Amino acid sequence: MAQKPSIAKGTRDFSPSEVNKRNYIMDVIKKHFKTFGFQPIETPSFENSDTLMGKYGEEGDRLIFKILNSGDYLRKVDEEVLTKKDSNSLTFKISEKALRYDLTVPFARYVVMHQNEISFPFKRYQIQPVWRADRPQKGRFREFFQCDADVVGSDSLLQEIELVQLYDAVFTDLKLEGVTIKLNNRKVLAGIAEVIGESDRLIDFTVALDKLDKIGIEGVSKEMGEKGISESAIEKASPLFSLKGTNLEQLNILGELLRESDLGTKGVEELTFIIEALESLGLQSANLKIDVTLARGLNYYTGAIFEVAAPEGVSMGSIGGGGRYDDLTGIFGLKDVSGIGISFGLDRIYLVLEELGLFPETADSSLQVLCVNFGDKEAMVSLKLVNQLRKNGIRADLYPSSAKMQKQMKYANNLNVPYVVLIGEKELEAHSFVVRDMIKGGQTEYSFNDVDQFLKQL
Amino acid sequence: MAQKPSIAKGTRDFSPSEVNKRNYIMDVIKKHFKTFGFQPIETPSFENSDTLMGKYGEEGDRLIFKILNSGDYLRKVDEEVLTKKDSNSLTFKISEKALRYDLTVPFARYVVMHQNEISFPFKRYQIQPVWRADRPQKGRFREFFQCDADVVGSDSLLQEIELVQLYDAVFTDLKLEGVTIKLNNRKVLAGIAEVIGESDRLIDFTVALDKLDKIGIEGVSKEMGEKGISESAIEKASPLFSLKGTNLEQLNILGELLRESDLGTKGVEELTFIIEALESLGLQSANLKIDVTLARGLNYYTGAIFEVAAPEGVSMGSIGGGGRYDDLTGIFGLKDVSGIGISFGLDRIYLVLEELGLFPETADSSLQVLCVNFGDKEAMVSLKLVNQLRKNGIRADLYPSSAKMQKQMKYANNLNVPYVVLIGEKELEAHSFVVRDMIKGGQTEYSFNDVDQFLKQL
Repeated sequence: MAQKPSIAKGTRDFSPSEVNKRNYIMDVIKKHFKTFGFQPIETPSFENSDTLMGKYGEEGDRLIFKILNSGDYLRKVDEEVLTKKDSNSLTFKISEKALRYDLTVPFARYVVMHQNEISFPFKRYQIQPVWRADRPQKGRFREFFQCDADVVGSDSLLQEIELVQLYDAVFTDLKLEGVTIKLNNRKVLAGIAEVIGESDRLIDFTVALDKLDKIGIEGVSKEMGEKGISESAIEKASPLFSLKGTNLEQLNILGELLRESDLGTKGVEELTFIIEALESLGLQSANLKIDVTLARGLNYYTGAIFEVAAPEGVSMGSIGGGGRYDDLTGIFGLKDVSGIGISFGLDRIYLVLEELGLFPETADSSLQVLCVNFGDKEAMVSLKLVNQLRKNGIRADLYPSSAKMQKQMKYANNLNVPYVVLIGEKELEAHSFVVRDMIKGGQTEYSFNDVDQFLKQL
Repeated sequence: MAQKPSIAKGTRDFSPSEVNKRNYIMDVIKKHFKTFGFQPIETPSFENSDTLMGKYGEEGDRLIFKILNSGDYLRKVDEEVLTKKDSNSLTFKISEKALRYDLTVPFARYVVMHQNEISFPFKRYQIQPVWRADRPQKGRFREFFQCDADVVGSDSLLQEIELVQLYDAVFTDLKLEGVTIKLNNRKVLAGIAEVIGESDRLIDFTVALDKLDKIGIEGVSKEMGEKGISESAIEKASPLFSLKGTNLEQLNILGELLRESDLGTKGVEELTFIIEALESLGLQSANLKIDVTLARGLNYYTGAIFEVAAPEGVSMGSIGGGGRYDDLTGIFGLKDVSGIGISFGLDRIYLVLEELGLFPETADSSLQVLCVNFGDKEAMVSLKLVNQLRKNGIRADLYPSSAKMQKQMKYANNLNVPYVVLIGEKELEAHSFVVRDMIKGGQTEYSFNDVDQFLKQL
C-alpha cells in the first residue's frame, strides 16, 4: 500500500503563486534594506544548543526545537538518567544542536565571532526562516520567516530616525499607505514607573492606559485600581490621561510629568530629537505617533521602541516592530556594543496586501507564452521561437506533446497564459507563426523574421 | 563569565560578500528557470519522519537529522525500550519529525497532496537548504542549498532537450563557458548489461570503462578481469573501447552493439533524437557529450542521465546533474507520473566562478555613497541628500556620528565605498555638497539643485 502523504503540523507548503507573492514582498524589503546601506548575512539553520538555550527565558527554551544527535546517541548515556525518565535532563545528553528561534541571537554570535572582519557600525539584514515549537493555531506557524535589519556599534539617534524612514520607504513602495509607526522609549517607561512609584506594576499600568480611547479616564483609573496600583500613583499619572495634540505637544506634557526623573527626561529628549528630525525630513506615506503604552519586549529594549500598525480599517496585529538594545553581544563576551533593529512581519504583511488587493499583477510571474505542439516537426520550429523569446527574458514554453488542441488550450487557460502561439503545417510552410491573444481575443500572424514585433507586443 | 561563541560543526556563516555572490548565482539560475516556464514552490524545512525515512536507503536514513519531540517526550515511552539502550528503536518513540534530506521527496509529497490544484505537466523549481548528518570535511557541509528544476507528468523527450538548453543558458549567462554536459541513458546501460551478460557487475564495468583515456584498452580489460567480468563479456563489450568520433558516430557504434537488446536500442534511439534536436537548435557555449560510463544514481533514474563538468582545466567534481525517473510519486500513491529533473551545485559553481574570477563587480552590492558626518546640523542636511539618492535606488548612507574625519574615511575605505560626500559648514552655507571620488581621486562640488547631475555620475 502506498503511504498517504502528510505535512508536519504547523508547517506550510507554498504554491507558485504564494512563493511569487512572498518574493515580491521580500524583494521590496531587500531593495530598501540595501539602499539604506544594510548588508545581508546568513547564519546556519541550527546552532549549538548552548548558543540558544537560556537566551529566550524558560518559555523560549521550551519552544526551541532540539535536534537528536546522530548515530548511537544513547551509548554514552548513564542508565540512571534513562530510568528516571526525566525528559529535560536527558535532552542535554542526546541533543547538542537546535533550530534557531530567531535571527537576533545568531546575529549576536556572528558579530562576536567575526568582530575582526567587521567594520562598525555594522548594518546587517537577514531574511531567513526560524522555528518555534508553538501550538499551531490560525496565523501561527512552527516555521516562519523573519526579516530583520539591525545596526550594531552605534548609539547615534540617527539610527532611530533612519529606521523610521526605512519603514516608511518599504510600506510606501508596497503601496500600503497610511501605516502608523508607533514610537516609545524604554527610558520614558522607566521614568513613569519612577515618578508614580509603581515599578513592579508598569505593565499592568501600560495595558490599562492603552484602553483610554475605549473605556475613558474613569474606566482606566478603575482598571488600574483593580490591578493594585495606588490612588496616589494614578493621581500622579493623570497627565498621561490627557495626552492629546501633536507628538511634540504630547512630549511637552510628558516632559513636565517626568521632570523629576533623569532617565525619563532623557527619554523625552530622545523622542523629541527623533520627532523633530523626522518632521523636518518628512515621511512619504506613514504616520508617526508617540505611544507611551507601547512596551513590547520591555526587558529587552533599552531605548527606542517601535511598532507598526496596519492602515486603519484593517484588523491585524502589528506588521513590524523593533527597538534599541544596549548589550546584545555581551552574552558572548563583546561588551559595550549598542544595537538597534527592526523587523518586518512577512506573513501579516502578506495577509494585509491580499486583503487590500495590493499585489501588483506582475508579482505573479507565471508563463507569458505557450506554443501549441502540433507534432515533432512543428515542435522543433516552435522550440526555435521559444528559444528566441527566452533569450529576450520572456517566460515561454512549448507544450511537450502533440496532445489534442483542446487539452493544450485548457493547460494554457489553467496557467493563465496571456499569449498562445500556433505553428501548424500551414505556418511551417509560410515561415510564420500565429499569436492568439487569450485576454482580448483575436489573433495575429507574424513572419518568423518579425519576432521583434511580437516581442514589442509583449 | 561570558560564553565563548561557536558555530555548529559542518555549518557556515555567510558574510555580506558571500551572500551577495551566492545570490548572484541563484538569481541567474532563477531567471532562466522562469523563462523556461518553471514555477517556484517551497516546502517546510522539516517533514513528518515517515515521509522521509526509507526513501534514501539505509545510509540515507542514518544521515537524516531527527528532531526531538517537544515537551515531556519520555512520558509515554516504555521503560523496557529505555533500558535496552537501543538508539534506533528509541528514535521512533521520541522523534516524529526530521529535517529534509533533499528537495525531491518533499516535491513528490507536494505533487501528491496538491494534485488537484496542479496543471500537469507541472514544471517546478525549488531552491532551499537541505541537511545531512555527514561527517563534515572540506567542501562537504551539513547544511547546503539545492537548486532543482523538475517536470512531472510528461514523458516527452522534449523535456530532455529543454533541460540541456537550460544548463547551457544558465552557464552561458554566468560566463562559465565551455562546460561539458554529459548525457547517458539508463536504458543503454541496461542494454549493455543485457548484451554482455554481466548485469550484476554493471557498475564495476562502467567504472573501469571510464578510465579508458587514462589506462588504455589493455588497462581497462585488465581491471574488468580483476573485478570478475568474464573474458567473453569483455570481448562482447569491445566496441565500447573504440567509441570515437562525433556523438552521432558513437551512437551508431552503440546501436550496432545493442541491436539484440530492445531496451538498449530504445535508449540509443532516445539519445539520437535528443542529440539531433540539440544539434539543430544549437547550444550557446556548452559542449554536449555522450558518455556511456555516466551512471549516477543508477537505481533512481530510468531514462536520460545528465551530468555537467566544469570547463577543462578546472579541477572540480560535477557542477550539476539529473535525469529521468519514472515513478517518483508512486511512493505516495500517485502512479504513472513520469518525471525528469536537473540540479545545480551551488557551492561548487561558487568555487569555480571564484577560481576563474567570473563574479561581476556588481555582484557585490555594497554601499555606493557615504556622507561624512560633521555634526547635527550638517547631518540633517546630509540625510536629505541621502534620502534623495536612496529614492533613486542608490545605496547611500550617512556616518552615524560626527567622529573624527580620519575614522569616517577609514570606514568608507573598509566598505570600499566609491564616493564619499562632504557637507561641512561651508557647503551648508553654499547649499552645495562635495563628492570625493575614492577610486580615481579628485573631488567635485555640486549645488543642491543639481543632485540629478551627481545621479548621472552614479
